[in-house]
Amino acid sequence: MRKFMDDKFLLTTETAEDLFFKYAKDCPIIDYHNHLSAKEIFERRTYENITQLWLEADHYKWRCMRVSGVPEKYVTGDATDYEKFYEFAKIMPRLIGSPVYHWAHLELQRYFGIETPLCEDSAEEIWKKTSKMLQSEGFDAVSLLDKAKAKILCTTDDPADSLEWHLKLAGDDTVPFKVLPSFRPDRFLHIDQPAFVIAAGQLGAKYGEVTDWESLKDALCKSLDFFLEAGCKVTDHGFIKFRYERGDAAPIVLKALLGKPLTENEVAIYQGELLYFLAGEYAKRNMAMQLHMGPIRNNSPKLVEYFGADAGGDSVGYTTDPFKLGAFLGDCEGANALPKTILYNLNPADNTMLATMAVNFAADGAKVQYGAAWWLLDHIRGIEAQIDQLMETGTLAGSVGMLTDSRSFTSFVRHEYFRRILCNKIGLLVESGQYPYDIEYLGKLVEDICWKNAVNYFGFELK
Amino acid sequence: MRKFMDDKFLLTTETAEDLFFKYAKDCPIIDYHNHLSAKEIFERRTYENITQLWLEADHYKWRCMRVSGVPEKYVTGDATDYEKFYEFAKIMPRLIGSPVYHWAHLELQRYFGIETPLCEDSAEEIWKKTSKMLQSEGFDAVSLLDKAKAKILCTTDDPADSLEWHLKLAGDDTVPFKVLPSFRPDRFLHIDQPAFVIAAGQLGAKYGEVTDWESLKDALCKSLDFFLEAGCKVTDHGFIKFRYERGDAAPIVLKALLGKPLTENEVAIYQGELLYFLAGEYAKRNMAMQLHMGPIRNNSPKLVEYFGADAGGDSVGYTTDPFKLGAFLGDCEGANALPKTILYNLNPADNTMLATMAVNFAADGAKVQYGAAWWLLDHIRGIEAQIDQLMETGTLAGSVGMLTDSRSFTSFVRHEYFRRILCNKIGLLVESGQYPYDIEYLGKLVEDICWKNAVNYFGFELK
Amino acid sequence: MRKFMDDKFLLTTETAEDLFFKYAKDCPIIDYHNHLSAKEIFERRTYENITQLWLEADHYKWRCMRVSGVPEKYVTGDATDYEKFYEFAKIMPRLIGSPVYHWAHLELQRYFGIETPLCEDSAEEIWKKTSKMLQSEGFDAVSLLDKAKAKILCTTDDPADSLEWHLKLAGDDTVPFKVLPSFRPDRFLHIDQPAFVIAAGQLGAKYGEVTDWESLKDALCKSLDFFLEAGCKVTDHGFIKFRYERGDAAPIVLKALLGKPLTENEVAIYQGELLYFLAGEYAKRNMAMQLHMGPIRNNSPKLVEYFGADAGGDSVGYTTDPFKLGAFLGDCEGANALPKTILYNLNPADNTMLATMAVNFAADGAKVQYGAAWWLLDHIRGIEAQIDQLMETGTLAGSVGMLTDSRSFTSFVRHEYFRRILCNKIGLLVESGQYPYDIEYLGKLVEDICWKNAVNYFGFELK
Repeated sequence: MRKFMDDKFLLTTETAEDLFFKYAKDCPIIDYHNHLSAKEIFERRTYENITQLWLEADHYKWRCMRVSGVPEKYVTGDATDYEKFYEFAKIMPRLIGSPVYHWAHLELQRYFGIETPLCEDSAEEIWKKTSKMLQSEGFDAVSLLDKAKAKILCTTDDPADSLEWHLKLAGDDTVPFKVLPSFRPDRFLHIDQPAFVIAAGQLGAKYGEVTDWESLKDALCKSLDFFLEAGCKVTDHGFIKFRYERGDAAPIVLKALLGKPLTENEVAIYQGELLYFLAGEYAKRNMAMQLHMGPIRNNSPKLVEYFGADAGGDSVGYTTDPFKLGAFLGDCEGANALPKTILYNLNPADNTMLATMAVNFAADGAKVQYGAAWWLLDHIRGIEAQIDQLMETGTLAGSVGMLTDSRSFTSFVRHEYFRRILCNKIGLLVESGQYPYDIEYLGKLVEDICWKNAVNYFGFELK
Repeated sequence: MRKFMDDKFLLTTETAEDLFFKYAKDCPIIDYHNHLSAKEIFERRTYENITQLWLEADHYKWRCMRVSGVPEKYVTGDATDYEKFYEFAKIMPRLIGSPVYHWAHLELQRYFGIETPLCEDSAEEIWKKTSKMLQSEGFDAVSLLDKAKAKILCTTDDPADSLEWHLKLAGDDTVPFKVLPSFRPDRFLHIDQPAFVIAAGQLGAKYGEVTDWESLKDALCKSLDFFLEAGCKVTDHGFIKFRYERGDAAPIVLKALLGKPLTENEVAIYQGELLYFLAGEYAKRNMAMQLHMGPIRNNSPKLVEYFGADAGGDSVGYTTDPFKLGAFLGDCEGANALPKTILYNLNPADNTMLATMAVNFAADGAKVQYGAAWWLLDHIRGIEAQIDQLMETGTLAGSVGMLTDSRSFTSFVRHEYFRRILCNKIGLLVESGQYPYDIEYLGKLVEDICWKNAVNYFGFELK
Repeated sequence: MRKFMDDKFLLTTETAEDLFFKYAKDCPIIDYHNHLSAKEIFERRTYENITQLWLEADHYKWRCMRVSGVPEKYVTGDATDYEKFYEFAKIMPRLIGSPVYHWAHLELQRYFGIETPLCEDSAEEIWKKTSKMLQSEGFDAVSLLDKAKAKILCTTDDPADSLEWHLKLAGDDTVPFKVLPSFRPDRFLHIDQPAFVIAAGQLGAKYGEVTDWESLKDALCKSLDFFLEAGCKVTDHGFIKFRYERGDAAPIVLKALLGKPLTENEVAIYQGELLYFLAGEYAKRNMAMQLHMGPIRNNSPKLVEYFGADAGGDSVGYTTDPFKLGAFLGDCEGANALPKTILYNLNPADNTMLATMAVNFAADGAKVQYGAAWWLLDHIRGIEAQIDQLMETGTLAGSVGMLTDSRSFTSFVRHEYFRRILCNKIGLLVESGQYPYDIEYLGKLVEDICWKNAVNYFGFELK
């Protein structure tokens, strides 16, 4: 029997161990998509206790608590920090087989040197030890990120954002990594949501009044240029349902700005036109385009009433229409306006579709990529499925690897989790005679996937 | 090489063996969903031979025989009992990797002490031995169920049913387990089927004439109260296609009662309104709501002509629309009228969607559950996939575990099958260092999943 | 650690080795679906070098090269043969976990006796060695096929084809295997494509002018009879989207022949009627009907512009509508006109649906089969998934096994690949105690799946 989560965690062959320890473990982290707060980084936020670090904004942990019967008071409610941590500790042993169980223990080990499994019995001791450490030096936001070897961090930002904190960070030589903004125009894509008019107003105030389709595109381009100057290399887009129709967006924008309701088809035309336009602008600026497809959000009225939107009440939605997605990518390519693109799916029934679709546009190598397992798929089986798909029908060797997609400053252990799974899969192929034992070549491959591919693909320059 | 289906069957680690033998093996069985005949139980039906026990009503075995080329005469036709058994024995070796192969041998081992693999050569001997035993004492329906340690059995019953046999069973102190009815209003949900008008007549004859939407709801409520009094804790609903629209059901019911054809949209509105109404009534009575989604039935005209409906000619149908399902559960929760709910899918492409959807409504713990692998998914890979899903994105610890969904009095070995797979999965996590070795805690977890969670969730009181 | 791709490749138990070496390895090959050129076989085409053999028409390899960043010039462009091979060799090590990696090395081992892994360093040596061998005796098309133990080859042919080369081959006693045509009426099914009118003209020129629905059916029947006489046992149909509506096809055919655009519904009616008609004609002639469902083709405008159609730019499309497919098969069966049918899916989300659908029509044994893993699913995980599906819900024992679906004369190692995976899966079941150790029975089973079932199912007579 193996020891619980020791050095060899998830590594089942000697080749896997060699690859992980010699090549993967100490690679820098290029986290090209997350939801960190640039402000908290710049201000070197500190934490009084582990609840502030862990439970303030972590959907994963919230879902685990709720489904284990913890009342919302102790999840997102007005219980004390200790009460919340204690409730989380109590349900931890129930999370057998969950990535949250592994992540939490990796974080305790890597950041706090705690090897004891977290449970009701160990809760108080771990609370005290972590509190003491968090209140000492070396546990502010910058130090935590530096400890993880983060070199590039791409946050997620609205086109109307001032990027105040990013600009300050760019001028702060004491921060040992780069924090770059990402352009995420979701409020502008979802023209059928009330946020659209507000967003248009905010963007207009910064980049010239948005009164129609042309002025909207113009303002978005100005924002894009501002992002570009601030070092932005990546954009992101979230879709409940990926729509793509072509037509005249101008009258639709006018209706929306007047607050008039739109038909499903009008939304689809607008989204098609905006996405096609933006893709071209991204291509011009050599920015990558991320497409996150397939969640349902805010399903529970109880949760929305208690907490508001984005409480973690998401689930898997429709599969993505391959013909719409193919048409969009094809139109872009046909016009020589296809940017680097990463496709992420939440519905695992889409794995093969997206992975094979990416390859259709491989005329210039792995320009369109099938992205890492995400949100409700970000667990061992999900990560293995993405790696398998890439090997079987795409390119693992060209993959830009893992990202955290997280709000949490210690979630960077997910890179380690991914790297262990990656090295283990490669090790199994080698030791079962499916691939030659060429540790140097494989080490290089692992390093590429862990960080070098991402640097080259996105065009990052390390600080 | 391991011996064929010995004690360690499916248990690949010592931890798995410990968990199974010390904790899982002897747990009572809470079979909260099956299709047993209460009449046959009360009458303590006996069997002349194993064909009556095995082949009279087992879709699984029929499908295996047909696909192995056995003519229908020997499947559901007028061949003799021995001929049928002989034909089944003959094709058994062809069923490598099928759950039917494992179940049949588990039944021979556990009920008849027969360790010999069933095949053409052993058919006669096994026929003779089982016939002799079946004709001796201790092989009537009640004894078979008692031998399996069944403590709670929930059958499947129409709202118009008299529950005559359930009531008799409730008064029979010699039966060592409870047999409770389940409310399954499928004939009332499927308003577009000819059975609706007949069902309405039958229900009306018992609970007041059904002439419109109001009198239909009224009669269903009276039936529900009658079921409640008879100990019903569970309801069930089968959908070829899960529809959910809201609107005015009254005119649609009138049309249907007059035998007029309905549009797809009318069916959807009626089903939406009825389901929403019933969910609220279930919640009031603290009854659980099961939703079985996704089969296609009676595909083969040849089979329907030969045998009639429900000959086992089912296959996997559409995936379920996550937005419709989410809207239904959300509407119920928003009105504080969400009953305990179990979601079952037949299309495995829905696994992640249903498992994550359930968690969205976890405000009160695992109230909405992702249910056990069912019908065409009830095999090792399917059971493992359900357990994986629960661990990765839901809660295995809170799961109500397995059920037989069967017409067969010896199908209870499926609980053993599930328990072995469960213990094996947990054992693998522990022995690979993914979870601490805490056998007592894990033993408790296993007991919970095997039976205690079901007792608590449904609110059963054991006899 | 195992040696790279040695004798035991993919065989992880002794039972698997026994099954493979004693029963599977030397079975003849019945390749009932491929895209070989009958002309090249008859002419005993020879190859100057391995590029002509490997890279002239292999979509799989092209996709791998593109996604690894090789410019199209070296893929399908005007680079020299050596340059192309060198570029392929260079990217080989990147293909870790890809079936292409395994197939290429199996081909080097089996046809050329080369055990060295192909990479940049070994490229020149392997090029020289294979060139020399290819230019020597025993490496023409017929010899290569004979070396693979091919006994039956079913090519893919248009109804308007003259079958000139098949007829010549039938008369050539020196060819040690049969080359039979397959009837593939795709140009006639896809009435909305420009090729339809051209195809109708070509068919008409051979079998009587096609001026309407009746004359179209008449000409197709005459072609079918001609194919039948030429030994055709199998037909094939490819669907981007499987449509099935019933109605009056006559006016739709008239519109199409006039070049008028058709509605989606007209296309669906025409396809439904033609497919239903053809199925009946196949049944009369005891021909099997293959249905390949689910790709998207020619997604990339860049690739289409550079190369034209069918450059390998395919991906996975929609899932197949189970109700349409069930209705089609049901209509055929109801009219006693259901031919032997093989269902192939490209979208793996359809695996369980198709596998269980096939069993619904098992009234006469495994007449409707769930076919082998295909194109983008033709890798270890995909092949295992098909075998699992068959075992769990269908019949592995009755399966007609593998096919190459290939244009390549050395792609027959894919049968070996399948056989190894098959024997390994069976070995694992036996050695883990899930199936009795009865090597003779299992050997027979393996032989059936490797070739005998196909001979019986299709009714081939070996040369």
